Amino acid sequence: MTNNEIKIISERIEVENPYILIGLPDVGLIGVISSSQLIKSLDMKLIGYIDSEKLPPIVVIHQTTPMSPLRVYGADNVILIVSEIPLPPALIRPFSKEVVTWAKALNPTAIISLSGIPVPNRMDIEEPGIYAVASGQRALERFDELEAMQVQKLEEGFMAGPYASILNQCMKETPPLPNITFLVQSHMNYPDPGAAATLLATVAKFLNVTIDVEPLFEQAEDIRLRMRDTMKRTSQTMQQVNKEQEYEIPAFYA
Amino acid sequence: MTNNEIKIISERIEVENPYILIGLPDVGLIGVISSSQLIKSLDMKLIGYIDSEKLPPIVVIHQTTPMSPLRVYGADNVILIVSEIPLPPALIRPFSKEVVTWAKALNPTAIISLSGIPVPNRMDIEEPGIYAVASGQRALERFDELEAMQVQKLEEGFMAGPYASILNQCMKETPPLPNITFLVQSHMNYPDPGAAATLLATVAKFLNVTIDVEPLFEQAEDIRLRMRDTMKRTSQTMQQVNKEQEYEIPAFYA
Amino acid sequence: MTNNEIKIISERIEVENPYILIGLPDVGLIGVISSSQLIKSLDMKLIGYIDSEKLPPIVVIHQTTPMSPLRVYGADNVILIVSEIPLPPALIRPFSKEVVTWAKALNPTAIISLSGIPVPNRMDIEEPGIYAVASGQRALERFDELEAMQVQKLEEGFMAGPYASILNQCMKETPPLPNITFLVQSHMNYPDPGAAATLLATVAKFLNVTIDVEPLFEQAEDIRLRMRDTMKRTSQTMQQVNKEQEYEIPAFYA
Amino acid sequence: MTNNEIKIISERIEVENPYILIGLPDVGLIGVISSSQLIKSLDMKLIGYIDSEKLPPIVVIHQTTPMSPLRVYGADNVILIVSEIPLPPALIRPFSKEVVTWAKALNPTAIISLSGIPVPNRMDIEEPGIYAVASGQRALERFDELEAMQVQKLEEGFMAGPYASILNQCMKETPPLPNITFLVQSHMNYPDPGAAATLLATVAKFLNVTIDVEPLFEQAEDIRLRMRDTMKRTSQTMQQVNKEQEYEIPAFYA
Amino acid sequence: MTNNEIKIISERIEVENPYILIGLPDVGLIGVISSSQLIKSLDMKLIGYIDSEKLPPIVVIHQTTPMSPLRVYGADNVILIVSEIPLPPALIRPFSKEVVTWAKALNPTAIISLSGIPVPNRMDIEEPGIYAVASGQRALERFDELEAMQVQKLEEGFMAGPYASILNQCMKETPPLPNITFLVQSHMNYPDPGAAATLLATVAKFLNVTIDVEPLFEQAEDIRLRMRDTMKRTSQTMQQVNKEQEYEIPAFYA
Repeated sequence: MTNNEIKIISERIEVENPYILIGLPDVGLIGVISSSQLIKSLDMKLIGYIDSEKLPPIVVIHQTTPMSPLRVYGADNVILIVSEIPLPPALIRPFSKEVVTWAKALNPTAIISLSGIPVPNRMDIEEPGIYAVASGQRALERFDELEAMQVQKLEEGFMAGPYASILNQCMKETPPLPNITFLVQSHMNYPDPGAAATLLATVAKFLNVTIDVEPLFEQAEDIRLRMRDTMKRTSQTMQQVNKEQEYEIPAFYA
Repeated sequence: MTNNEIKIISERIEVENPYILIGLPDVGLIGVISSSQLIKSLDMKLIGYIDSEKLPPIVVIHQTTPMSPLRVYGADNVILIVSEIPLPPALIRPFSKEVVTWAKALNPTAIISLSGIPVPNRMDIEEPGIYAVASGQRALERFDELEAMQVQKLEEGFMAGPYASILNQCMKETPPLPNITFLVQSHMNYPDPGAAATLLATVAKFLNVTIDVEPLFEQAEDIRLRMRDTMKRTSQTMQQVNKEQEYEIPAFYA
Repeated sequence: MTNNEIKIISERIEVENPYILIGLPDVGLIGVISSSQLIKSLDMKLIGYIDSEKLPPIVVIHQTTPMSPLRVYGADNVILIVSEIPLPPALIRPFSKEVVTWAKALNPTAIISLSGIPVPNRMDIEEPGIYAVASGQRALERFDELEAMQVQKLEEGFMAGPYASILNQCMKETPPLPNITFLVQSHMNYPDPGAAATLLATVAKFLNVTIDVEPLFEQAEDIRLRMRDTMKRTSQTMQQVNKEQEYEIPAFYA
Repeated sequence: MTNNEIKIISERIEVENPYILIGLPDVGLIGVISSSQLIKSLDMKLIGYIDSEKLPPIVVIHQTTPMSPLRVYGADNVILIVSEIPLPPALIRPFSKEVVTWAKALNPTAIISLSGIPVPNRMDIEEPGIYAVASGQRALERFDELEAMQVQKLEEGFMAGPYASILNQCMKETPPLPNITFLVQSHMNYPDPGAAATLLATVAKFLNVTIDVEPLFEQAEDIRLRMRDTMKRTSQTMQQVNKEQEYEIPAFYA
Repeated sequence: MTNNEIKIISERIEVENPYILIGLPDVGLIGVISSSQLIKSLDMKLIGYIDSEKLPPIVVIHQTTPMSPLRVYGADNVILIVSEIPLPPALIRPFSKEVVTWAKALNPTAIISLSGIPVPNRMDIEEPGIYAVASGQRALERFDELEAMQVQKLEEGFMAGPYASILNQCMKETPPLPNITFLVQSHMNYPDPGAAATLLATVAKFLNVTIDVEPLFEQAEDIRLRMRDTMKRTSQTMQQVNKEQEYEIPAFYA
């Protein structure tokens, strides 16, 4: 039933063992800012979109062309799934299932989630730290490389929302699908292009591709202004999500 | 299932490749004011109505005759679908699907949405600007004509609500149905007959028909008074729609 | 499905072409006050009741006998459907469908809705005016008689709620069922036995029966006191109905 | 469907034509206080309980034994159905249906509801009055006996909630099941053991059994204190019930 | 249907007649704190998790490994079901059913719920008292042993929430499944490792195993600080649960 609720519609993908990146509006808008720069820098091609009866009636216009706010891009062995709008809570699980089912058929090297982790003193941090959570054989094999890239394994903690749901779906596959979630320290309630740039630099090393992150650093101030309003709305919706879904910080420690 | 939720009931339409205009209560009440004047000026004939179990129990009375608040009118090659009441959020998608399915069977030259785009300084604008969003081969072919009519293509932006849903349904057809959404600069929370008149003048050129828009300019002050109350209510419902449907301004820029 | 939600259970009715009157709690409690006096004056017999799983768990007691708050009465060629409680919003459409389906089988001369229309300056009006809305051949044929009875045709306006839903169902039949809605000027938030008496006097002429309306005029003050509390509650429920159902005053004028 | 929602599970009952008493938390907690004393005084045996997926997850503990808050007791020809918790509004109708269906199979002499009717000046009333509402042949036959017991027939009024729903279900049977609802004048928002004692004394005469009501009179003050908190909670839930179910005082008088 | 809503997925369990302990976030976080220490002290092995479409999208990370917040642990003849997050109200009954069905197949010696009972003057209590509620033959047989362990049988009272629902499901089995709920006096709104330690010491005697509870006593202060935030959130969710489920303190006394 769930798989009928939301559907990825895309061109046929021929590349073997791709990296599948996920960029969603979240803490610091890391996923969305990163995705935008990835598309520009890798000159990614629009190859699909995501359709659901339960998505709000929204169309976005880019370069005079109307399109869905949830889209799929591709360039060589990198595939990107991006959403410009927060997912309605009722769609989080169906979305995750569809993404993981769709990704599994492509036999991916890894599903890579681009996320942020809020720090209160972000202002005082020159170089934001990056944490990672991994699941699945292929991902765990490369988990140790990360230390050389200044990425720390998250020891104790929890994840909530769409990225957690995607990780959960990957873990439930037999064998588990390789998933790495990158969490870069970022602002909670403001877009953080600086943190997104730091994350992209590491992702570039991990994927062994070249990504121009300079524009993000340069335009940080400019982007901050353009995105302030959007951020406020995203933040309100996320509060609502938190409330409706009762994202509880688990009470356990072991 | 959805198509059973709402249904267009109309006389048989014989005209080939009609223009199908859509007028809904929205920003500045542009769609509703334009439709009213269109009906008068083109002497359009009432040829159908829209029925749904989910519409609120409302009957409108015009010239002593009770009728549905959602109706279909026709004159030569112009068909008009008009609603006097805001659509309940749960009906937005079923309404759009039914309109597009019904329109497709008529092989239309274009589906034309009559909408507004709010500007804060509307008071200071003598001649409100008109933007357009187009989809589908036949619509795109005529997209370039618009510049000669002082209509600008919308470069970057987003649409939300019933007009976005209609555009979305048109885009999903194979091949996409021709759709043009006209967005005239208007008041956000007050009816704007002046903006509606400006829009109608352009629509007249585009459809190559004669529409008398003088009454709108002349009666602007009068209409403003009569519609103020209605506007307040429409605005409240739209706020609710916004809230329930989480119309989010997309966070993306490319 | 809908017809199973609510059901009229009544004795078999043998009279041909009856008038079917509808009295519901509405503006000024016109429908309920009129119905009460009709039953007394015409000595109407209790012949049925209305049952639904969705009605609130309420039993009313009259002259020591418990009964349903929604009942059917009959006397000669006059049938009366009366409700002592406001209909839950979710029952408005099923109730209307059942009433119209049930009425249709009796081939009625007319379905006559007893309603009020609020006026702010009711205090200053000696003789409240009566408006009428008609649909269906048999009703329209007698529509012109009304002017002689000082009843005005409603030129432009709208109706919302159960009476609108009944009218709507009548309009959708082929051919449309004869329906006349009488709207007497009345208080908005207080019971208005004076207005009900004025309406009943006209209804008596229209039905060609004798109805004693003097008690209403005489007991106006008394009734006002006894019904004040009920009115408050009805008003609250109606506000809720308005909110839930988004009864919007249509934005159109033609 | 409804009968699957809630189920009475009990030992087989062999007694013929029993009296089936119903004690529910209501105005003045009359039903619950009366039931508690009935069980003690008649040394009633626990013979069943009521189960439903929709009941809140609550277990009560009496004399170290955990049990359901909705239970069935029996002693000779008296059966008692008691609930220690207010019924969730969505269960009122299924509960009533199940009780009446279950009772019907026992061919009862009468179903007797133990309820209260609030009076504002309860403080000033030495001996609270008792009202009765009856339906069904066997109940009506004995209705006249009541006057000798100082019980008044309720002339005009209404009932709302579970007791009204049970009465309604009895009325809908063919022939109607015998039902008597006793309504004793009581406090609205405080437990009223005095009123319960007065009611039990009358019920004892009616059932022709001996019930010791002295403990209620004696412990009135004590019980009042222990139950004050519970009453507050019951009252809040009942307000909610009232709100959700729109218990409207009917607007009719005849 | 319900059993499809939530599912325990675990390794095959070979041990005969195990003790099945349940630790859920509740008053004083007794269940969660106890479970955490049990896992450490008995070196329990992670052997399963609980999956449901209706659980919020949360993943917890322990020692760099992502896992479900609802898990199953085992060591010798002790099995532990623990949840780090409060159960959504709609899952309480399905969760209880699944736990009891799953436990029944293991033919357990007893299902043991680790819970707290709030006391306002917890500060002044050196050694918190422990109460017990039992159901089912095997549990009742051992009920008398408890007095020697300073555990009091709960005479009169009620239980609400997941532990009550588990007890209820055990009671409904034929024959009833053995269930003991331990309720230790604890803080209402703060984590209470001291009370958890006192409870664990008694549970150790009852299970005849050795549990090191010293760390809890020692780290009481430390844990208190780390858990204060979590407690606040748990408390908010529980208030919501209480509200939605109308956990009413039963009005009965016998």
